[in-house]
Amino acid sequence: MNNNKVIPSTLSGFMELLPNEQIQFNKIEKVLREVYELYGFYPLDTPILEKSEVLLAKAGGDTEKQIYRFSKGDTDLTMRFDLTVPLAKYVAKNYNDLVFPFKRYQIGKVYRGERAQKGRFREFYQADIDIIGDGELSIINDAEIPSVIYNIFTRLGLNDFTIRINNRKVLNGFFSMLKLEDKAVDVMRIVDKIEKISQEEFIQELKKIGVNDQQCDEILKFVNIKGDSEEVLESLKKLCGKNEMFDQGVKELELVYKYVADFNVPKENYRIDLSIARGLDYYTGTVYETTFNKHPEIGSICSGGRYDNLAEYYTDKKLPGVGISIGLTRLFFILNEMNYITQSNSAPADVLIIPMTDDLSYAINISSKLREYGIRTQIYFEDKKFKNKISYANRTNINFALFLGDDEISQEKVTIKNLDSGEQETLELEGAITLIKDYINSIKNEKIIDLERTKMKQ
Amino acid sequence: MNNNKVIPSTLSGFMELLPNEQIQFNKIEKVLREVYELYGFYPLDTPILEKSEVLLAKAGGDTEKQIYRFSKGDTDLTMRFDLTVPLAKYVAKNYNDLVFPFKRYQIGKVYRGERAQKGRFREFYQADIDIIGDGELSIINDAEIPSVIYNIFTRLGLNDFTIRINNRKVLNGFFSMLKLEDKAVDVMRIVDKIEKISQEEFIQELKKIGVNDQQCDEILKFVNIKGDSEEVLESLKKLCGKNEMFDQGVKELELVYKYVADFNVPKENYRIDLSIARGLDYYTGTVYETTFNKHPEIGSICSGGRYDNLAEYYTDKKLPGVGISIGLTRLFFILNEMNYITQSNSAPADVLIIPMTDDLSYAINISSKLREYGIRTQIYFEDKKFKNKISYANRTNINFALFLGDDEISQEKVTIKNLDSGEQETLELEGAITLIKDYINSIKNEKIIDLERTKMKQ
Repeated sequence: MNNNKVIPSTLSGFMELLPNEQIQFNKIEKVLREVYELYGFYPLDTPILEKSEVLLAKAGGDTEKQIYRFSKGDTDLTMRFDLTVPLAKYVAKNYNDLVFPFKRYQIGKVYRGERAQKGRFREFYQADIDIIGDGELSIINDAEIPSVIYNIFTRLGLNDFTIRINNRKVLNGFFSMLKLEDKAVDVMRIVDKIEKISQEEFIQELKKIGVNDQQCDEILKFVNIKGDSEEVLESLKKLCGKNEMFDQGVKELELVYKYVADFNVPKENYRIDLSIARGLDYYTGTVYETTFNKHPEIGSICSGGRYDNLAEYYTDKKLPGVGISIGLTRLFFILNEMNYITQSNSAPADVLIIPMTDDLSYAINISSKLREYGIRTQIYFEDKKFKNKISYANRTNINFALFLGDDEISQEKVTIKNLDSGEQETLELEGAITLIKDYINSIKNEKIIDLERTKMKQ
Repeated sequence: MNNNKVIPSTLSGFMELLPNEQIQFNKIEKVLREVYELYGFYPLDTPILEKSEVLLAKAGGDTEKQIYRFSKGDTDLTMRFDLTVPLAKYVAKNYNDLVFPFKRYQIGKVYRGERAQKGRFREFYQADIDIIGDGELSIINDAEIPSVIYNIFTRLGLNDFTIRINNRKVLNGFFSMLKLEDKAVDVMRIVDKIEKISQEEFIQELKKIGVNDQQCDEILKFVNIKGDSEEVLESLKKLCGKNEMFDQGVKELELVYKYVADFNVPKENYRIDLSIARGLDYYTGTVYETTFNKHPEIGSICSGGRYDNLAEYYTDKKLPGVGISIGLTRLFFILNEMNYITQSNSAPADVLIIPMTDDLSYAINISSKLREYGIRTQIYFEDKKFKNKISYANRTNINFALFLGDDEISQEKVTIKNLDSGEQETLELEGAITLIKDYINSIKNEKIIDLERTKMKQ
C-alpha cells in the first residue's frame, strides 16, 4: 500500500469542468459546429504541437514570451498559441489539394503561458472560422461572417449583443489624410483603447507618440461620429474624394453593411463603429468586435477581420481571407460565473432503469429497445438500497426512472416515474417510449443560456 | 517581402487530414460520441498538460521514455500519454462532487514520443469509456462494455469483428494451480504474444523465465482450449474446486458471457478466448480485445478490462472500474489505408448557390431560408467564370447547385441541378427544399465504412 499519495491537482489556468457543466459546455460547442457547418465550413483539426520554426515564422515580442516551447530529441517544439498560424501552414502546405475559397472552421485548444489570474486561461478553446481566397476574395464574404455569429449567439440564447463593424482602410485612409500614415499602427493601438480610458488619457497617449493638437481633435471628432450606421456612413461619404484608400474603405463598409441586412441580421444586433480598430492584429479591411450590451466590461467576446495575406511566411501565393474567433473557454467561464447557463437538461441519460429482480435480462432487453429509439438509457446495476438508486437519478438530473419488478416482467410492462413531477404509471414499453420522447422533444429547443437566469442567483 | 520562406511542414507522427478526410474522421468520432451517450456516459474533457508529478505518480519504465515532458518557469509539465491517468486524477480530485457509479467517456489527443514509423502516431486520439464504482462495482457492467463496442462498430459499417473476452482471475488462478504465482505477470506477458510467435518460441520464452516442461505443457494446453465459448466454459468448470481465485474468475466470465447475449450482441461477434491476457496492463478481472476477422495482423483495435483500483496513487478510496479504449487515429489510418472509408457524403455543404446576377440579395435570402431547414448551404460569391463555379461544387463533392438568374428572381423560383445525375429543373423554393431533403435522408444511413469497397481499389 502506497501511503505517500500525490495530490490530484489541476494546473492553474487550465479549465476542468464537473460532469454536468461539461455537458453544457459540449452543447455550446455543438451549436457552434452546427452553425459553422450550416454555412458550409469544412472542419479542420491540426496538431497541437508543431515545429517551432513553423509556428514562430512570424511571431515575436509578446507571443515569444507566452509560448510553451521545448525540445524533444533534437526537435524544437511549440504548442500552438492560436489557430491562425496552423491554418496558414495548412493552406500553404496543402495548397494544391484545396479548393478555393477554402472555408474552414476549427475548434481546438491553444496554449498561452499568461500570468495566472481569475478568468485568464493558459489552455483554452478557440473556435475559429476563416474563408481563404486564392489571389482574391469577394468582399461579400465579409458580410456573411456577422450572420454566422448572429446565428450562433441567438441559438445559444444570447440576443442582447452588438456586432460592431469597421474597416481598417477607412481608418488608415483617414490617418493618411491627417498626414499620420507613419504613425497609423500606433494611433490604431490607442484608438482601440478608447472605451477603456478617459478622453484626457486618450489625448495624452496620442500626444506621446507625436500627434499634434489639431490632429488629436480630428481623430477624436472622427471616432466620435455618432448616430446610427446609416448616419455614420453619410458622415464618412462627406469625407470622400481626398484619399483613395479611404474611399475604398467606405465603399467596402457600405457594401458589407448592406449585405449583412440581407443575411437577416436584425439592425439592433450590428452597427458600424469607427472606434473599432483591432490595433494589434494584422487586419487590412473589415474588422469585427462583438460585445454584450449589458456587460461592456467583458470586452469583445468574438473578434476578427479581413487580412490580405494569410501565409506569406510560407508561400509566395497571395491568400487573402476573412475570419472571426470565439474564445469559447473564456465565454463559458464568464457565462457560468454570471449564472447564465441553464442547469436543466444536463443529465447524462434520459432514463434510468432500476431493476427490482436478481435476474437482469429483462432490464437489459428493455435498455436495448430504448436505445434503438435514440433514448439515452442507463441501467443501475449496483446492489444498493432503493433510496440510493433513486438518489443516483436525482443527483445526475435524470428525469425518468423505469422500475422493473416481477409484476412488470410477468405482464411485459414497465413502471415509469417522472422524477420531476412525481407521476408514476405502469405501461406497455411503447407508452413509456412515447412519454420519454415527448419530454425530450419538449426540452429540445430550450436555450443553453438564459440571460434572465441571473435574477435567481443567490 | 520576405523571401526566406519557412517550409510549411507537419511533424512526423502527427496526423493532419485533408478536408474531405476530416469530414469522414469527424463522422466516425460522432458515432462514438452518440453511442457512448446512448449508454449514459458523461463526456469529460481534461487538460492536455498536467503537472509531471500528477501524471507520473505511477509511471515508470517505458512510459517515462516516451513522454513529452518539459519545464516552464518552475513547473515540471507533462503532456498526457493516455486518458486513464487523467481520469484517476479527476475522480480522486472531484470525489465528493461525483455520483457513483461514475460513467464517463473521453475522446482526446494523447502524446507518446514513439519511434516514428508508418502507422505509428505520436499525437493520436483515444476514445475511452470507463465505469467507476465507489468501493465496489457490479460485474454486470463488464457485460455492458462489449455491447457499446458492438453498437459502435456496426453503426460504422464494420461487422466482421470479434470481441474476445477473458478474465485475469482465471489466468492468475490457473497459474497459481501450477505453482507459478510468482511468475504470473511474466507468464501473462508471454501468453499475450501467443498469436505473434510460433509455438517453439512460446515454449522457449516460458522456459527462459523458469517455467518447467510440465508447466509449459499445461499452459499450452490451457490457452489452446478449443471450441465455442460454451465448450470453453465447460472445460474451465472441470478445473474448478482447486483454487478460489480461479473459481471466482470462471463465475465472472460465465456471468459476463451470459449477459453480453442479453445485450443483443450476436454470438458471432464475441467469444471467450483464454489466450487474451493484456499482459502489460493493470487489469484484475475481465479483459477485452477486439480484432477484425479478416485482418488479424492489425492486432486489437479496441482493448480494455476491469481493474480493482483506479486512483490508488491519489487517494485511499477504493475505486474499482471497467473500461475500454479505441485508438481512433490508428483505426482511421488503417481503414483509410485499406480504402474502406467511403468518399461519398464527404461534402462540406448540401447545396451551392450560384448567383448569376450582380446583386446578391436574392441569393443571400434563399441561403437563409435553406439554412432554416437545416440544409448546409454555401453561396459562391467570387467573380469567376461559370465553369469555375461548377468546378468548385464538383471538387468539394457538393451534390446540388442552385442557379439564381434574372428569370428566377423575377419568378421567385430557383433552378436546381443535381450534379450527380445531371437533372435540372426550375421550381419554387419549397420544391427544391424537398429535393435536397429527400437526398439528405436517402444518404443519412449510409455507413462510413464499407468493407466491400476495397475491391474497387486500384
